[in-house]
Amino acid sequence: MGEHYEQYLRNNRSRHLEELKQYLSIPSISALSGHKQNMVQAAEWTAEALRRIGIEHVQVMPTGGHPVVYGEWLKAEGKPTALIYGHYDVQPVDPLHLWDTPPFEPVILEDKIYARGASDNKGQIFMHIKALEALLAEDGTLPVNVKLCIEGEEEIGSVHLDEFVEVNKEHLAADVLVISDSVMYAKGKPAICYGLRGLCGMQINVKGPSGDLHSGLYGGAVQNPVHALVQILSSMRNEQGEITIGGFYDQVRYVPEEERERFRSLQFNEEQMSQELQVAELFGERGYSALERTWVRPTLEINGIYGGFQGEGVKTVLPSEAHAKLTCRLVPDQSPNEIIERIQRHIDRHTPPGVSVTTTLFDTGKPFVTPVDHPVIQAAGRAYREAYGVEAVYIRSGGSIPVVATFAAVLNVPVVMMGFGLSDENIHAPNEHFHLENFDKGLLTLCRYWYELAGIRSNDAIRNGDNNCSS
Amino acid sequence: MGEHYEQYLRNNRSRHLEELKQYLSIPSISALSGHKQNMVQAAEWTAEALRRIGIEHVQVMPTGGHPVVYGEWLKAEGKPTALIYGHYDVQPVDPLHLWDTPPFEPVILEDKIYARGASDNKGQIFMHIKALEALLAEDGTLPVNVKLCIEGEEEIGSVHLDEFVEVNKEHLAADVLVISDSVMYAKGKPAICYGLRGLCGMQINVKGPSGDLHSGLYGGAVQNPVHALVQILSSMRNEQGEITIGGFYDQVRYVPEEERERFRSLQFNEEQMSQELQVAELFGERGYSALERTWVRPTLEINGIYGGFQGEGVKTVLPSEAHAKLTCRLVPDQSPNEIIERIQRHIDRHTPPGVSVTTTLFDTGKPFVTPVDHPVIQAAGRAYREAYGVEAVYIRSGGSIPVVATFAAVLNVPVVMMGFGLSDENIHAPNEHFHLENFDKGLLTLCRYWYELAGIRSNDAIRNGDNNCSS
Repeated sequence: MGEHYEQYLRNNRSRHLEELKQYLSIPSISALSGHKQNMVQAAEWTAEALRRIGIEHVQVMPTGGHPVVYGEWLKAEGKPTALIYGHYDVQPVDPLHLWDTPPFEPVILEDKIYARGASDNKGQIFMHIKALEALLAEDGTLPVNVKLCIEGEEEIGSVHLDEFVEVNKEHLAADVLVISDSVMYAKGKPAICYGLRGLCGMQINVKGPSGDLHSGLYGGAVQNPVHALVQILSSMRNEQGEITIGGFYDQVRYVPEEERERFRSLQFNEEQMSQELQVAELFGERGYSALERTWVRPTLEINGIYGGFQGEGVKTVLPSEAHAKLTCRLVPDQSPNEIIERIQRHIDRHTPPGVSVTTTLFDTGKPFVTPVDHPVIQAAGRAYREAYGVEAVYIRSGGSIPVVATFAAVLNVPVVMMGFGLSDENIHAPNEHFHLENFDKGLLTLCRYWYELAGIRSNDAIRNGDNNCSS
Repeated sequence: MGEHYEQYLRNNRSRHLEELKQYLSIPSISALSGHKQNMVQAAEWTAEALRRIGIEHVQVMPTGGHPVVYGEWLKAEGKPTALIYGHYDVQPVDPLHLWDTPPFEPVILEDKIYARGASDNKGQIFMHIKALEALLAEDGTLPVNVKLCIEGEEEIGSVHLDEFVEVNKEHLAADVLVISDSVMYAKGKPAICYGLRGLCGMQINVKGPSGDLHSGLYGGAVQNPVHALVQILSSMRNEQGEITIGGFYDQVRYVPEEERERFRSLQFNEEQMSQELQVAELFGERGYSALERTWVRPTLEINGIYGGFQGEGVKTVLPSEAHAKLTCRLVPDQSPNEIIERIQRHIDRHTPPGVSVTTTLFDTGKPFVTPVDHPVIQAAGRAYREAYGVEAVYIRSGGSIPVVATFAAVLNVPVVMMGFGLSDENIHAPNEHFHLENFDKGLLTLCRYWYELAGIRSNDAIRNGDNNCSS
């Protein structure tokens, strides 16, 4: 086994890339209501791609928001069932003027494909579809049973997926959840991710006088909402990068010294990171390395701020209102809802006189971690070794896939995160791209993984290999 | 004297208002380069309006930026010469969606005319033109000599007017400078303004990583430019509303107790102000009344702030850059350039690690104050009493007309600020308007003022009535 799908993938590479370009050209931005029709189009495209390769019972299933694409192939009797999760929605593209090529006109340059969604996540869910295509085309069968659940709301917090998973939990039942939506450790260094941060956030709206005022005639007499906002925001973090929201760190789980030692053994190059990002130095919570600050420590980041005059030149206005968007990345055992409450209490306590503050909440996701030594994770290690010719490393990620915690809890499955992205591929930013080297090797890894998974001694070993999740 | 121009103004009121609507419909926004042609159009309109009423030697004089309109009438032999200053440029109109009627389609509603520039300053400079028209039409002459200097860059800091005044100082020589670009004390309570605040400001640009980053993958490891910006801005003011820039208050001139007592005697209603602005309470530097905080105390106000994601919903980005615009209002004897230097030193000292900061400076203006008991100011008091039937009060203003200090210094003239605006007329904000009651009474006041000025015993009394200015 192995030679057939390798040959098949080589022979069909050009066609696959053309299909991927088609997929990436659909502007499926879930956050913007004007793109609703594109979302349907991307869902239909995904469903059709599944039907074409022989996946059965493919459906575009409605939710309260954007639809979920579901399909299955369940003919590997006695073999484990894997649930593959991914998403066909993408992030907004602004600031558009910073893109070198249009975000929805995919181009391949220097063995990388550039487009919004190339790495996160259309490119990677497309690889899953093509790996299954290769096996089905060459073998006429699959070594394991598979179910696919591809949603359209990941970039807006998987608004309706919790409910979808709950309602369809019998339908989605599986032995393992496989997700390719994380990054490799570095170029040429594959990684299996066993932990993700959680997420919560809000928009803060500060309202002052009923209209914009002349800053000369009123300046000094009236609270300026932008001053109030920067005062509130500034009070949330000290100069050492520590979050000063009362109780913010109370529920943070102790990170064992052996795990920190494993992080150190990765010899992460902070100097190189700061060079790549073109900053004079990295910055963050004191007492922790950059890896630790992104993997096992929580954060509070302002994602956007706006108020008053933003045009060319100067306008001497005392603005009527000011706004900021902020999100926290959470680690076990922080509770998103509890952190939101703490932030709101902090805002109440730090709102200066003369303005009023309202907040609107964003969707939340729990933090998540899986034991490193679980058989489904070790099987992934073997698949990577085969395809890449090197040992994979076991990492955590600072990102969040809120639905992972839901899947793990509702379906009671272990989770394997086999991502093929690289951290400098500008996901969520202008000029997102994906390295075709990892498109090719990733396809081989995925094909191989299904054989490795089929080889695990029994389904029981998968399901009860360990206490399989912790969210 | 008196009856003739009153009758004339009544008879021609409808035509005057139609002309004013024409004038206000020209979108002469000096700050926006796209409006260059409208600026020329507004200058030509002004010049033609002067020619039509009999003003002589009318010229549209080029500068390095928008042109100055000049005209004169110098046939009142042996009488004082007044220089009338105003501006035909207006502020930008955004946020446009907050206007109830389009800013450049003037409408009269409930005896108020709504349009950008209705109060600041087209409406008021137009009144000067129409007052001269009434006198010339009825008497065939004027009681004093007049020169008019109407510029197009007041709202962007009178960029080229300092040089213009310096170059043309013989041409502009006069006995008194008259400006109608300030506000009355209240509806029905005319005021003569004897002091203005100065102005300086800058845009602060904070640059972090070379591009926007994923706030999950990088959050915690890298300085967030928005956090850095709010930290810098927050450090500039304490919770009591005091500016904490080192040395900010060092040059502030002592305000005598008798002047503060005069302010108190105005019985300014702070409660009413906060109700009008729809804020729970006023806010500002402790130990001073709202009037004092706007008239005789300096301020630092953030006029605008922006960075990161501002769209609908959430985008979990760690922004690459963040920006703020701030301006200070200054009082005697603060120096705009010195304050700018102090702010820059403060920024240098408060810039956190991991970002770089640049600043771009806005134009400056010196603060200014004229003695209350100067004959040209007392003459204005008599004119107001005649036209409004009440005593005018003597006030200072928190606003800035930077060129006033220049005029006073270069031409060595006393300054009379006879404004007809009201402080709730939304100048610099959506729904700017002007009360027609003050259009009518203001025209009478201006006509009367020229007779009062003509009656002062000698030109020497005007020029040497007192040490005439202090900037």
